[in-house]
Amino acid sequence: MDAEIPKKVESVRWVGDTSGRLVLVDQTRLPLEFVERTCEEVSDVWEAIRALRVRGAPAIGIAAAYGVCLGMRPHVAAPRRAFLESLDSVHAYLASSRPTAVNLFWALDRMRDAARRMPDTEPLDPLRRLLDEATAIHAEDRETCRAIGRNGASLFADGQGVLTHCNAGGLATSEYGTALAVLFTAQDQGKRLRVFVDETRPLLQGARLTAWELGRRGIPATLICDSMAAQVMRERKVHAVIVGADRIAANGDTANKIGTYGLAVLAHAHGIPFHVAAPCSTFDWDLPDGDGIPIEERAAEEITEGFGRRTAPYGVDVYNPAFDVTPARFISAIVTERAVIQPVTAERIARVLGSR
Amino acid sequence: MDAEIPKKVESVRWVGDTSGRLVLVDQTRLPLEFVERTCEEVSDVWEAIRALRVRGAPAIGIAAAYGVCLGMRPHVAAPRRAFLESLDSVHAYLASSRPTAVNLFWALDRMRDAARRMPDTEPLDPLRRLLDEATAIHAEDRETCRAIGRNGASLFADGQGVLTHCNAGGLATSEYGTALAVLFTAQDQGKRLRVFVDETRPLLQGARLTAWELGRRGIPATLICDSMAAQVMRERKVHAVIVGADRIAANGDTANKIGTYGLAVLAHAHGIPFHVAAPCSTFDWDLPDGDGIPIEERAAEEITEGFGRRTAPYGVDVYNPAFDVTPARFISAIVTERAVIQPVTAERIARVLGSR
Repeated sequence: MDAEIPKKVESVRWVGDTSGRLVLVDQTRLPLEFVERTCEEVSDVWEAIRALRVRGAPAIGIAAAYGVCLGMRPHVAAPRRAFLESLDSVHAYLASSRPTAVNLFWALDRMRDAARRMPDTEPLDPLRRLLDEATAIHAEDRETCRAIGRNGASLFADGQGVLTHCNAGGLATSEYGTALAVLFTAQDQGKRLRVFVDETRPLLQGARLTAWELGRRGIPATLICDSMAAQVMRERKVHAVIVGADRIAANGDTANKIGTYGLAVLAHAHGIPFHVAAPCSTFDWDLPDGDGIPIEERAAEEITEGFGRRTAPYGVDVYNPAFDVTPARFISAIVTERAVIQPVTAERIARVLGSR
Repeated sequence: MDAEIPKKVESVRWVGDTSGRLVLVDQTRLPLEFVERTCEEVSDVWEAIRALRVRGAPAIGIAAAYGVCLGMRPHVAAPRRAFLESLDSVHAYLASSRPTAVNLFWALDRMRDAARRMPDTEPLDPLRRLLDEATAIHAEDRETCRAIGRNGASLFADGQGVLTHCNAGGLATSEYGTALAVLFTAQDQGKRLRVFVDETRPLLQGARLTAWELGRRGIPATLICDSMAAQVMRERKVHAVIVGADRIAANGDTANKIGTYGLAVLAHAHGIPFHVAAPCSTFDWDLPDGDGIPIEERAAEEITEGFGRRTAPYGVDVYNPAFDVTPARFISAIVTERAVIQPVTAERIARVLGSR
């Protein structure tokens, strides 16, 4: 199976020109199968985001940008006004795929702005313009992830144990990752790290994706259940925690995969630094704090039948929030492509990133 | 399937006289199948404990006591000295089944003491004597659990949300449970509780067993992943946590299912009381504190293939401690059959329980 996996895995890639198609690594099939999925229509992209075939806030944003190209293809010959109205529909449709990751809305807004900026007299094919913008978002993400890696690597020292949750690696972005980019860069600098990987229930992105990515990179990784994180901290096997983010409020409150908040409280109780790595596009400047972040609740079956076999009594009530919000006071540093923000306060964030 | 389940489920029962057999509910098959397993030889009991077909510290102790009866049956005609030597072997064999639950050793010691106390001139069949002792351990556990329920119920008020981890219910004991006995009694007193049930990775005793027991009792229960406990606390849905115990040191440090320690730290951080319910036989007076409690590590496959399907890359390193130790300072109260110990300090424990 591994023989079929390309050396450089791209979670999201566009193949061809404006008449091309979007190809995604189907992340629900990893680690046992490496399967790519082709999206020819915008509904394929919506389904892929909804079903978590493509996941991770930055990767969702990139996929959605290309999804706009697919969604607008039937409207390419429409007059400008009708074209922009259709774009609003495509925007709203893709925005409905998942509620929490702000990069999704950020990428969709950027695509719409690009179309609106096109003058009437524009000689360029509007699809060409949209595809250029999506390609730019994609290319910028690559550079952003590398910059996050460079900026954050100094937070880690040779010989340390690091805990991560969910997957904030190459699969969650264009290629390099956010939290994992920091660890990859530290490794490239010769630092030997051991990464403890929370399996990340219910959908096991840690076990399935992060363990797989670290293995491919040759970084020593130890898989644990989420409930073991406190024990690993107590045993002093872990010197820092680093995770990604789905949305960050202006004060630094951070929405990320369910379980992140508990990890941050545990890290705080053990005197272990807790870091977040995310592109600036993850900041939602409209939100002063995390209270306003909508938390996606997902189907009960993710918990009761998450492994292909029923593991709970039929009829049991289930609560399945997909995310939680970690208050800024528990976060030691936020690593962005522009700088490391430390300490994490509204004032510091505004000063370093200058708002929008 | 439910039609086949007896109204009163007994996790462990002896059928017949000294030539009888031990019948266990195979807890690995719940909640989808209710299957009983018959043990005719001591090796069947060893396997059942090892494979967690019977689990929960008190239930393991009872099963092991009956296991001694099965193990000594081939030696019934031996002279006293040879009989006692064989008993030492059976004791050591059963003690090797699982390392952490002290009730196992407590029950085995008690069976050996009963045999040693038999005078040479004893007219009674030694198997009869052993079976009487095992039956006494079993009957005492029933009464112990009911007393734990009575003693602990006042810790909970009408309308509260309660979080529990793993299974400390009827299945983990003779019939009524420890932590769940407290909730059952509170319910009998007319208090309406909602119980949040940690699924309890890797083996899902919460999802499979606790959710099933609460459902059969008509107690409203909500299943969550272990990683969601902090979020449920933050949302103020939970007013107290109660769990069982596998071993308690003289100062109150408590070994219990992995994840318990993290829950206790989280409860502390949220100002939520954290209670332990366990029979006095769970105290290990030889241990001044929890540092000396051996922690069982179990197979990697429990995490990587726990649901019949591989969910992690082949070759990944795994850490799978089955228990952790919660320091006494995080425990608000220990509920025993004799009294509620509060606050949890070595002095208070010694005063209330008077050591051994």
